[in-house]
Formats: sequence, C-alpha cells, structure tokens
Amino acid sequence: MNTVSKEQVNAFLARDFPQAARGEVTALGDGGATIRYRIDHDALRPGGTVSGPVLFTVADLALYVAVLGEIGIVPLAVTTNMNINFLRKPSADRDVIGVCRLLKVGKRLAIGEITLYSDGNDDPVAHATGTYAIPPARGAVTHP
Amino acid sequence: MNTVSKEQVNAFLARDFPQAARGEVTALGDGGATIRYRIDHDALRPGGTVSGPVLFTVADLALYVAVLGEIGIVPLAVTTNMNINFLRKPSADRDVIGVCRLLKVGKRLAIGEITLYSDGNDDPVAHATGTYAIPPARGAVTHP
Amino acid sequence: MNTVSKEQVNAFLARDFPQAARGEVTALGDGGATIRYRIDHDALRPGGTVSGPVLFTVADLALYVAVLGEIGIVPLAVTTNMNINFLRKPSADRDVIGVCRLLKVGKRLAIGEITLYSDGNDDPVAHATGTYAIPPARGAVTHP
Amino acid sequence: MNTVSKEQVNAFLARDFPQAARGEVTALGDGGATIRYRIDHDALRPGGTVSGPVLFTVADLALYVAVLGEIGIVPLAVTTNMNINFLRKPSADRDVIGVCRLLKVGKRLAIGEITLYSDGNDDPVAHATGTYAIPPARGAVTHP
Repeated sequence: MNTVSKEQVNAFLARDFPQAARGEVTALGDGGATIRYRIDHDALRPGGTVSGPVLFTVADLALYVAVLGEIGIVPLAVTTNMNINFLRKPSADRDVIGVCRLLKVGKRLAIGEITLYSDGNDDPVAHATGTYAIPPARGAVTHP
Repeated sequence: MNTVSKEQVNAFLARDFPQAARGEVTALGDGGATIRYRIDHDALRPGGTVSGPVLFTVADLALYVAVLGEIGIVPLAVTTNMNINFLRKPSADRDVIGVCRLLKVGKRLAIGEITLYSDGNDDPVAHATGTYAIPPARGAVTHP
Repeated sequence: MNTVSKEQVNAFLARDFPQAARGEVTALGDGGATIRYRIDHDALRPGGTVSGPVLFTVADLALYVAVLGEIGIVPLAVTTNMNINFLRKPSADRDVIGVCRLLKVGKRLAIGEITLYSDGNDDPVAHATGTYAIPPARGAVTHP
Repeated sequence: MNTVSKEQVNAFLARDFPQAARGEVTALGDGGATIRYRIDHDALRPGGTVSGPVLFTVADLALYVAVLGEIGIVPLAVTTNMNINFLRKPSADRDVIGVCRLLKVGKRLAIGEITLYSDGNDDPVAHATGTYAIPPARGAVTHP
C-alpha cells in the first residue's frame, strides 16, 4: 500500500524542510527507512565528533521519513517522544546513517526505533526510539 | 569470549532470582538473548491482557540475561534506565517472548534493546531500551 | 473541574485492580497525585531492596491515578510509554511513595513525571516519565 | 561545595562551545540550573515553531550546565541518554527557558530532569530526562 517513493520524500524534504538539507533518503519501504546525513564542519563539537543534537536530528528525520513512507506525505505529523542513547563517539569525517524500523503504525501514533552509524562502521554510534502523533485526517496531503 | 551458557544462566536465575521463576533463557550469545516468560492468571489485569509491569519484568530480565552472557554471572549488575513503549494488547493466553540485542557493552555501561512478542505472533507487543551499570570489578563471580 | 476524589479512586482501584491492592492514593488534584505503595517481602529481590518492576508498578499507578483525577474514572486508559531511571537503592523496609506531576493532559495523550521515594527519605530512589493514551470517548465511565 | 559560578560557566561555554552561543546560564546551584536560549529565525521550522532538535539542544545544555555546577568544569562529560517529550507548540518569537533539576550526581553518572518553557508561559513546551557519564578523574579541568 506504500505509494510514496524515496524520490517523492526527498523532493518534499528539499521543498519544505530546509533543515533537512543535509539528509537524503536512501531506502524506503517494508516498514522502515534509511537516510544518509552529510556531516560537515558545522556539525562538529570540540574534540572532533558529531554533536548530540545532530544525532537527534538524524534519528528524528529517519523516523519521520519512515512514517511518511507508510501514511503518505503529511507535513503536520509531530514527534511526541524521543529517547536516545549515545553509544560511541561518531567519526568526525563520516556521514551519519540512520536506519529506522517501524514498530507500530496505528491510527493515532507511530512508533519506531532508529539505529545510527558512522558510514562504514557496523558498531552503532547511537540508538533511538521515537513516537509520532498522526493527525486525525490521516493520509491527507496538505501544502502549508 | 562468551563462556556462559544458557543452562548456566537458567541455573543461576533459579537459585538466586525467585522472581524470575517464570522466565527461561531459550537462546544466548552473539550479543543477545531470547527468553520465554510463562504467563498465568496472576499476570493478567482486567480486560484479559498482560500487565505493563509484567512486560517491564520480561524486558528487564531479557536485558539482564544478555548482559550476563557477555560479562559473566554478576549478581550485582543493576538496571539504571529502562524506556518501554507498549504497542499492542498482548494475548492473555500466550507466553511472552523477549528478544534482546545488545547495542554496547562497555566497561561501565551495557545498553540493549528488547522486542517483546506474544508467542506465535510476529507483531511486537512492546519494545524497550535499557541500560545496566556494570560493577567496577567486571566479570567477577560473586555469591551474595 | 476535577470532581474525582481520592476516596473514589481508591474505591475504584480496590474493586477493579487487584494488582493495585498495595497502593493507596494519599493526595489527588492540582494536576498531580501522590500514592503510597506498601512494601512487603514479596516485593524484595536478593540483596534486600525493592525490585525494578515494583518501582515501575508504583510509577505507572501514580500516573494512572493522576490522569483519573483529571479525566474521571476511565478504566480503559492505557500506558503507551514509560521511561524510568533508577537512582538509589530503596529501603527494604519502607513503603514507596510516588509523586506524580502531570505535564500535559490533551485530548489524546496525557504525560506526567513521577518521582519515587522510600518513605521518610528526601533523596529519590527513581524517576519516571510516562504517557497515557486517552480513549476517544474521553471522560466516559465504563464498567468492563 | 559548589564553587562554580554561572559567570564561570558562561565564560567556559563562550570559549569552548560555539554551538552554545545562543544559551546563557541565568541561575546555577542548589542542584539545578536555568538557562535562556535565544530563538532566532534559524531555529524555526515550517509552521513557525521551534524545532525538536533545538529543544533537545536546550535540554542537553541545561543538564550539562547543572552538572558542571556540581562537579566543576569538565569539558569531557558526555550525555549517554536523553528522553524528551514534546508537549506543546513553542512560541516562534519567544526564547526557550530550560530549568534543570538534578536527581542524582553519583561518581559515574549524573541524572537530571529538565522542563522547557517558552519565555513568559507557565505551560511547559517539552520535558526531558537525561544522563551524563562523568569521567573517572572527576572534577579535573582539562583543556582539549
């Protein structure tokens, strides 16, 4: 039933989410999504690592994209909860990869877990679990 | 380096954790663990489902067992954080299966995620992420 | 608008929640609730402390009671998320006191934070944040 | 024993945390901290509100500052866990105020809860609970 492609989501993000400019959807469907988030100097904190807020951003974006893949382009969906564990120091010179697996997509809430990696390394740098509130008029495509 | 078998963990739980009497380790190793938790009438709440505290117990036990599999039998390890999302109504007449994947086992903290199922159903009933504090004298086997 | 008294909630719990038999509402209103949870030998784990699942139970009950105080007796409200941090070893021979402060009571979700104490000690033993899903027919009193 | 003033923390942040340039410590001590985080156009997302990652940043910073107030200026302290609930839409044109209360400052972990407000409004826009890992050589001032 998923009729939203990663190209459509990338186009939507490029148009409506300037904050997501560093993110690109690389896989979408089967109850999940994978994104690549470009790391440049602005994302680094002292000591040469990727900051916590940037990792939060990637987790949030991966979950949002995965939800869009299930319910369609819904600009108004909002995160209600995010729990994130920081596991290892990310590489300063590698993109961050976010892999989201949806655990439930209900009428009102969608819940997913996201594992974050530094590109090329199998040991996760962070793991998050998040909840999205789905607007009552589910699936509607609105243009703000 | 994992020299702890599921039989050893089951024997340890039977001896030292009367609260875990309903739990049985069915798989251990490769950075994870699977447990089966027997559901009987005491675990049910009005409406005929498994209570939240029982699901919490299963998540906590699955994580504890997975950590034991990595660091050895350490009775004093303690949970410091558990975040649990309740996803679907569990079956009242099915055992709960807890599948833990360790995300990191460091010198001081171990973090894992746990997916909980009603036996025989692939849709998870709950998902948790937890942290254990590892005692300074890591790996020591102590008998309280 | 809160027309539910702690006596009414205690009566409801006594009738419909045998698992809550050890809990007693001692304060209700002003966007919060306080409960006392009786600790006896069944609640203890090796080493003589209160188990994590019991602390989870107290947090969950305190939040549930606080929500009931705001929306009325709604047996079907369900916890969707609980995040709990275990801070200090609880006293084995003291009741657990749970103090819930509601952060938001919306149409669909109620969120609260709960601080847990061993009776008579000001240092919290645990802290939790939880979310309840409120049934669509908000405020209705139903008897399962 | 708290010998760190808010002025010292502000000076430290200004020197070593360019990302914290929008934050200012307005109160410090007694097991907590309050910060003010300036909101300008970069922090806004479509619909005219403060983004989730910005609220995360404020929570993280408030907790970090509160921990510094207890253990001294320790640049290497790292967040290990953050759980955040988004409660209400923040005002687009108000600063965000973060109020952190420390729940525990142990030898290895510090845990605190943070309530976030839009300046001038008593209803919280978000609430978070976070954990910091404290470096083994506690209290040492190091300059990376």
